[in-house]
Amino acid sequence: MDKKELIEEDLKYIWRPFTQMKSLEEDINKPILIKRGKGIYLEDADGKKYIDAVSSWWVNTLGHSNKRINKAIAKQTKQIEHVIFAGFTHKPVIEFSKKLVKLMNNKLTKVFFSDNGSTAVEVALKMAYQYQVLKGKPEKRKFIALKNSYHGDTLGAVSVGGIDMYHKLYKPLLFEIRQAESPYCYRCPMGCTKENCDCECLQSVENILKEEAQNTAGIIIEPLVQAAGGMIMYPPKYITKLRSLCDKYNILLIDDEVAMGFYRTGKLFAYEHANIVPDIVCAAKGITAGYMPLSVTVTSEEIFNAFYDDDKDGYKTFYHGHSYTAYPLALSVALENLKILEEMDIEKYLQPKIKKFEQELQIFKNHKNVGDIRQTGMICAIELVKDKNTKEPFSYEEGIGKKIYLEGLKLGAILRPMWNCIYFITPYIIKEKEIEKLVKIAYTALNKVLPNEE
Amino acid sequence: MDKKELIEEDLKYIWRPFTQMKSLEEDINKPILIKRGKGIYLEDADGKKYIDAVSSWWVNTLGHSNKRINKAIAKQTKQIEHVIFAGFTHKPVIEFSKKLVKLMNNKLTKVFFSDNGSTAVEVALKMAYQYQVLKGKPEKRKFIALKNSYHGDTLGAVSVGGIDMYHKLYKPLLFEIRQAESPYCYRCPMGCTKENCDCECLQSVENILKEEAQNTAGIIIEPLVQAAGGMIMYPPKYITKLRSLCDKYNILLIDDEVAMGFYRTGKLFAYEHANIVPDIVCAAKGITAGYMPLSVTVTSEEIFNAFYDDDKDGYKTFYHGHSYTAYPLALSVALENLKILEEMDIEKYLQPKIKKFEQELQIFKNHKNVGDIRQTGMICAIELVKDKNTKEPFSYEEGIGKKIYLEGLKLGAILRPMWNCIYFITPYIIKEKEIEKLVKIAYTALNKVLPNEE
Repeated sequence: MDKKELIEEDLKYIWRPFTQMKSLEEDINKPILIKRGKGIYLEDADGKKYIDAVSSWWVNTLGHSNKRINKAIAKQTKQIEHVIFAGFTHKPVIEFSKKLVKLMNNKLTKVFFSDNGSTAVEVALKMAYQYQVLKGKPEKRKFIALKNSYHGDTLGAVSVGGIDMYHKLYKPLLFEIRQAESPYCYRCPMGCTKENCDCECLQSVENILKEEAQNTAGIIIEPLVQAAGGMIMYPPKYITKLRSLCDKYNILLIDDEVAMGFYRTGKLFAYEHANIVPDIVCAAKGITAGYMPLSVTVTSEEIFNAFYDDDKDGYKTFYHGHSYTAYPLALSVALENLKILEEMDIEKYLQPKIKKFEQELQIFKNHKNVGDIRQTGMICAIELVKDKNTKEPFSYEEGIGKKIYLEGLKLGAILRPMWNCIYFITPYIIKEKEIEKLVKIAYTALNKVLPNEE
Repeated sequence: MDKKELIEEDLKYIWRPFTQMKSLEEDINKPILIKRGKGIYLEDADGKKYIDAVSSWWVNTLGHSNKRINKAIAKQTKQIEHVIFAGFTHKPVIEFSKKLVKLMNNKLTKVFFSDNGSTAVEVALKMAYQYQVLKGKPEKRKFIALKNSYHGDTLGAVSVGGIDMYHKLYKPLLFEIRQAESPYCYRCPMGCTKENCDCECLQSVENILKEEAQNTAGIIIEPLVQAAGGMIMYPPKYITKLRSLCDKYNILLIDDEVAMGFYRTGKLFAYEHANIVPDIVCAAKGITAGYMPLSVTVTSEEIFNAFYDDDKDGYKTFYHGHSYTAYPLALSVALENLKILEEMDIEKYLQPKIKKFEQELQIFKNHKNVGDIRQTGMICAIELVKDKNTKEPFSYEEGIGKKIYLEGLKLGAILRPMWNCIYFITPYIIKEKEIEKLVKIAYTALNKVLPNEE
């Protein structure tokens, strides 16, 4: 089959994620057939190359088709691809878990494996609630979550989500939560500015806690960046103060590092910037360098010990598992990934790239539709507005993001704006020259759609 | 590190699925370190081999470390391991989807990808409910599920689960369902026998439908075998009649083939035995021959078309996705798997093995604690009871299953009974001689724990 036929077959049989399928009737919206990936580039069936500026849904870290990872996979398949993880174990999972806990300075020590970001969050929610039950507090069954948050698409994760377009419709299938303000600094709900902010928005969390801490199991956050909500960024001190609130009111802090973890913010986990330790950490995406689904929910001895018992009737066990829990193939990749990152001295390695992005982003400063330029480590975002003074946003119907995406493709980059935000989440191995090139493409695409001189 | 040290590290850092961690203090319960897998065998660090009679959580079909699958993986990693599946596509996913729909006789034609069995079910539930909303029936938001059912461990899947020990505790986090009787033929809730059964237990489904079909989105079942509930088996006519009920009362039939799909019952999907077509089919486990997580939720043009619209405000789109949705690595495996199964002429290939199991199982017939021997294709189960006449079950505390498991390990097989059921779900490539050997091991283990001559 040639390219055209393949695309036709694709449209005939496949229902795509997050996609209004009717939009694919238009030629420009048809899926692009990718043939190959190498480093930061994806190559389509016509040989055209694109910078993968979204790391293929924020997962890729070491570039596509990484030779060392490929070798680790080939080696592992010859030994054992998968073995049931109840009653049995294997070397890659032990070495990985040990390394991970060590990198977390032994502050959280118990690693529970599942398959993706959503399941890591489901594990965290179930674990947090069951912990409260086992501590004799079954009434502590509510969760607090933030506006604009995204924690995954399974119904437990949707319950703590805060983006209407993704989550609202499913309300009859969700459990009840309390929603606190989003720490959306550019549009501060308290009317503060970055200069005078003292995390006043946390007051909305404390107001809820004053009312019903006694019924609350925990609060879940995306640390430093509410990514799917529109790359909303907020300072580490928010997390530091939130930790104190959790301690004061005796609820658990669940830290969803699915997107931020594995050095996306410059450190292994974003919570490190806040000098605190959460009670439960969820991580996925970059854990396998972008190769295959795997996730962890890491927690404390305190929580683990609440489940540790003779348990004659079986009700103290954490009943959660997936067929491929901790499958050796993914663990061999996750382990090799950690080894590579260690050899790279990844925190230091990323510094010049983070600085380079910061410098290059200045080009957007004087564009009339750029409301905010923000950066957290290797995540950069440019929020577009209709009017800089009023901060009036573009409406969904205007489809500004989509137009910029299409211009980006023509120019050789996958930009895929999130709502009205152009963003960069690239593989870590991007070179400084490539950062220049990518930012220029984005700036050109922006000016095609929203010319500055108008 | 030697074996002993590795196991110690394992226990220090890893929280295992479905496991009371305190039980691992006992030496006999410590996880076994697996070094290698080949065909139906797993080999531990001491070189001891075990028949993988549970197909490592019912996923393995072609044996461990299959050469052709290994080769497909090596090839795919050199091309592209993963690419974002919104806006982009790749050859393996197109070829696989086309082949799958063809094998389903084009009755269901739209394939939605996710990562595991739980997420496939979550997709089905969300899709079914949103379908009703889009058809102008938002009040159709309830689901019917069966007692003893298991559909996964994320909270949406737990909501439709019916096993108290796994599901009850989380009730405050679950959505409300209506529960119908389990078609547990050996312990028929209607007091029927296999000989005089006309699926009277379906009356409990119809009773619910009479009350509130107008508020019901759909019913979800595990076809032919309620696996995690205790390998409970029921006849195809139940599904045929259920399909009629769904049509009569205008609700959707969601068929969770996660464990049964990909020829476990002798056909691609279990629903084929009933000569019907469900509205939504979930599949996972065997889809990748046991290599890595991948799942599909396959549905009809009718359901797909309800979402197909100009959708100016974005509320008709199915917002669900995972980072690794339809990742090329898994799709290259799933495609190679289908090719191999086709070349094997799998339905015919399995027939002598199914017959061989049937013959060998007769050995259990005269054991005083064997209440029921049942088989559906490549799934065999022996239900143990305290008393054949009263069918009195062993209690959880007696731990009969666990004792047989430990005896099985000594004898070189992973039996892992489910509640009071010894079962066999082996890789398809098991030889007839190996079936003999496996059944003998199980029988010997049973007699060690429950001697027949007592």
